[in-house]
Parts: sequence; structure tokens; C-alpha cells
Amino acid sequence: MLYLYSPEQQDHYHRLLQEALPDWSVASWPQEVNTEAVTHVVTWKPPVNFFSRFPNLQVIFTLGAGVDKFLQRDDIPDHVTIIRLTDAGMAQQMTEYALYGLLHYQRQMDIYRRQQQAGIWQPQPTRLARNTRVTVLGLGQLGMQVAQNLAQLGYPVSGWSRQPRTIDNVRCVHGCAALDDLLKETDVLFSVLPSTTETQHLLNAQRLALLPKDAALINAGRGTLIDQDALLDLLNQQHLRFVLLDVFAEEPLPATHSFWQHPSVLITPHVAADTIPEEAVAQIAANMQALASGHPVQGMVDRHRGY
Amino acid sequence: MLYLYSPEQQDHYHRLLQEALPDWSVASWPQEVNTEAVTHVVTWKPPVNFFSRFPNLQVIFTLGAGVDKFLQRDDIPDHVTIIRLTDAGMAQQMTEYALYGLLHYQRQMDIYRRQQQAGIWQPQPTRLARNTRVTVLGLGQLGMQVAQNLAQLGYPVSGWSRQPRTIDNVRCVHGCAALDDLLKETDVLFSVLPSTTETQHLLNAQRLALLPKDAALINAGRGTLIDQDALLDLLNQQHLRFVLLDVFAEEPLPATHSFWQHPSVLITPHVAADTIPEEAVAQIAANMQALASGHPVQGMVDRHRGY
Repeated sequence: MLYLYSPEQQDHYHRLLQEALPDWSVASWPQEVNTEAVTHVVTWKPPVNFFSRFPNLQVIFTLGAGVDKFLQRDDIPDHVTIIRLTDAGMAQQMTEYALYGLLHYQRQMDIYRRQQQAGIWQPQPTRLARNTRVTVLGLGQLGMQVAQNLAQLGYPVSGWSRQPRTIDNVRCVHGCAALDDLLKETDVLFSVLPSTTETQHLLNAQRLALLPKDAALINAGRGTLIDQDALLDLLNQQHLRFVLLDVFAEEPLPATHSFWQHPSVLITPHVAADTIPEEAVAQIAANMQALASGHPVQGMVDRHRGY
Repeated sequence: MLYLYSPEQQDHYHRLLQEALPDWSVASWPQEVNTEAVTHVVTWKPPVNFFSRFPNLQVIFTLGAGVDKFLQRDDIPDHVTIIRLTDAGMAQQMTEYALYGLLHYQRQMDIYRRQQQAGIWQPQPTRLARNTRVTVLGLGQLGMQVAQNLAQLGYPVSGWSRQPRTIDNVRCVHGCAALDDLLKETDVLFSVLPSTTETQHLLNAQRLALLPKDAALINAGRGTLIDQDALLDLLNQQHLRFVLLDVFAEEPLPATHSFWQHPSVLITPHVAADTIPEEAVAQIAANMQALASGHPVQGMVDRHRGY
């Protein structure tokens, strides 16, 4: 039996899952079920101890790409397989989000907003896409597609990842030394890195300062990537032109945080890429098929690696 | 002899023109020349009576796409050919400008800005590109490429023009009755229409009101397209969510105009698409070649039509 718990669009997901998996019995919260019969769970943000109810649990499908919150739980036995979403419509939304921040920078919309407030009509020197260097941190399914899409739009794109990667029209590098060099040649830095022990404060004071003066930073991965206090310092020194942040060390961002009213900070409330139910269910169904037939699964989580 | 007058990057243009046209004698303002020898002029925003100095003038190449200011002058004899730029790197910039406004709308960045000012963390319902209907007014070289580029990014795009057009993946309509119907089904309206007697206040109070409530408008063509007072009324009634305006009936926009401080108006100072000298000169050189060999010229202006 497959059990569904989703804080959003649960009825819609239930219907889609039942349609995609006609041979399965699909139940969903708060329906009473024989918990011993549940082997597969599809879920996002389940309550504490949720998984303890299912003694025969084999597989968890998460309705999102970032699984850090799952790996921090203690109600998931080691033998349970966790499978996360790897795109499900999120790559296009991530591209849109990155592109908005990139255009805000390249087309100098931050400067034009300030000029408008002051009633100033003053064209800025034209900056072309081909002269705006973009770096994408994280080259999984999402980052890879964002990098490719931005390169297609005429931007010189570099990509950085833990493991070596090859992407058409994108200069790929890996490892920490390479990151430091890359930051020095980046006008707009975009991250979709997950939250792991290795990415925790990867962008610390020292690395953030390697970005050229007047660079911009867009974070759509996880808030733990950035030392937020160091970032505030750099913004106050006007070393960076602006940051567009969708994710934060603590969410919702606390009401007293200096980011809220900072003139160089644009805040969105963790909305860069939403799961699209139809595409999520198609991916889950394909993975269940792959599991049953011994084929490779997309998004199999390595708990040690953290994603 | 070819004579150059450009308020911007004149030396750069001079060098590029001489390189592209090695057989021509190229002179530029304020150089003293035998005005009777000048047959071709390359220029943008020349002073009053500039053209009267050249009795043997045959061809004017404009360093921009919109020629309304040229057609209002009385120093250009009827027999002189006017050739305007039709792309020269402007299509990509126009796409970027349209896309910025479109993403600002689709990704609800206007709402998130207001929420940030109020310290509110509140995700808005996800809106996908495929559910955001875009209409492009004007399907010349620029509008056509913008429409195609936006369609490729996943938006449902319609295009409107005076003459019938066919563009892959873009629903094209023409004529005033069709425009009225199209406006009713438009979420984001983008215009690159030129200033002509036919486009003057084409977007009057009645037509602007046909846009659905909470639609957005982006104008990167000419300011005369819009009845600005009617637009202000609609904005004050909160019928439109926001407008992104690059062009105005009077430029610079007068310091006292209500647009400057209006919370639903984003202003840029006529910067949507700048001419790229290298590409402009390549287009001019190709057109001079075409003129000399009797081949079709790109951007030949029909003074009666107005572009």
C-alpha cells in the first residue's frame, strides 16, 4: 500500500497517484489504514514520528528536491530507501528565478529603481549579456539545466560542483581551489546547492570577498550555504551590488533580521521552484517502475553524501 | 563621401565605418568637408537643419530603429532615401527587457517587494510560464524575434500587427477588431510599435480597460502609443497590476509627472535596446552593398507608412 501525506494539494496528489498507479492501493492522511500494509510513502514535511507508524516501510518518495530535513529525522530506519524529486518542473522555474536576478543586475534595474525614487532620468552604460559572467553552484539536474538555459540566452556561464561534470557550452570546474579562482571571475553567482555538511557556510566571509566589487548573488538552494553575517558586512561595505535570496538559515526569516529592510537585499519566501504535482507524480511512477524492474532510479538519496 | 554625425561613440563609429567601407571616404562632425561631395549620411539625433547642408544627399542611415523624429523634420527632401536599423543587436536586448517585466509579473516580484517592505513572509500561489499569456504589439524584426524568444521559453504568445504575419509557435492576428479581442485574453502586454499616426494613442482608455484586471503592460516602443492620463486612471483604480515603461510622450519624463512616484509604475530612461556599433555598421555596410547591386535593403523607410 502507498500512503500519501502532503500539506499542499493532497486530494489532487491522491487522484494523480491513483491514476498513475492503478494496480496500487493508495491511501492518504488522515484516512485510517492498516499501517503494517504500508510499504511506500509519498510525502513532504510530515509531522514528527510520522514514519514510526509504518513497520514495513521500504521507500519514501519526497515531494521536493532538497532532503536535508528528512536526513535530520530519527524516525527513518537505515534500510528505508529515500528517493527525491530531481526536476518535476522545477528546472524551468529555477531558470526563471535565476534569470530574473540576472536581468535585474545586467539591465541595472536596481539602479533604475533608485533613480526613479529620486526622480532621476539617467541612462546607464549598456551592458550586454555576453559581457555578464554567470557562475552556477551545484550541477545536479536543476543546476545543469539552469546553466544550459542561461548559456543559450547568450551569457558566458561557468558551473561548479563537487564531482567533475561536462555540460555543453558551460565551463565546468570542481573542487574548492577551483571555486576560489572562479569566484574572482564571476559577475552574478547563482546557487542551487543542497544543505550538506560540505556546503555549510561554503560561502564564508573569505570566499564572498573574492567576488569582484559590485557583483551580485542569488541563492535558491539552501540558506545554510551562506554565512549571513559575513554577507551583511559585505553588503554594508557596498562590496556587492545586491543579493536575491529565496532561502535562509532560519525560515521564515525572523522578523527582526536586518535583511528585511536592507536596500541591497531582495527577499522571496522560499518560492524559487515549486513542485508541479503532475510532473512529480509522473517521476514517482517512473521510479516505482524502475525499482520494480531493477532499472536505475532518478533521485536515489545517498544519506552519507546528503542528497 | 559618407558623413557621420553621432552624439554617442562617434570616433568608434568612424573607425568601424572606415574599416567596413574601405573604398569610401568617411568624414565625421565637426570635420570641415566639401558638403557638395556628401551623398550618404550616417546619423542619430542630428541638429536642426543638419541635412540642408548637403545638396547632393541621397541616403540617410539612422543609427536606431524608430525614425519618427526623422519624419517630423523639414530638412530632408522627398527624394532622399532613409534606411533605419532593423535589429543590430537590439532584438536580444528587447527580449531581455520584455522578459524582465514578464518575470516580474509571473514570479510576482512586485508582490514580494511590497511584502518585504512590510516584513511579510507569505508565499503566493505558483504561476507557471505556460499559464501566463503574453501579447506582443508590433511584429517587425524586433517584435517578431521577441515573440519567438518568449514562445521558446514556454509562454503562450500572441502577436498583433498592422499587416498579416506568420511566426512559428506564435498566434498572429491583425487589425483593430482583432486587437480588442486579443487584449481581453492578455496577461502581459508588450509593445515595440513605432510612433505613427496610426499608433498614436492606440492604447486609449477604452482599449486599456479591455485588459483583464491585474494584467501588466510593458512599453518599449514609443510613448505616443499610450494615453498616459487614461493609463494613470486605470492604475489608480488598481485595474492593472503594474506597468514597466521605457518610453514616454515627452522624454525625459517631466520631473512633475505622476508616473515617477506611482507605486505601480517602473520607469527606465529609454534604455530597452541600445544600438551596438559593430552590428549597426555591419548592417549599414550590407545595405550599401545591396543598394549598389540592386538587391533588397533591410529597413528601407516608407515615409507615408511611418517606419
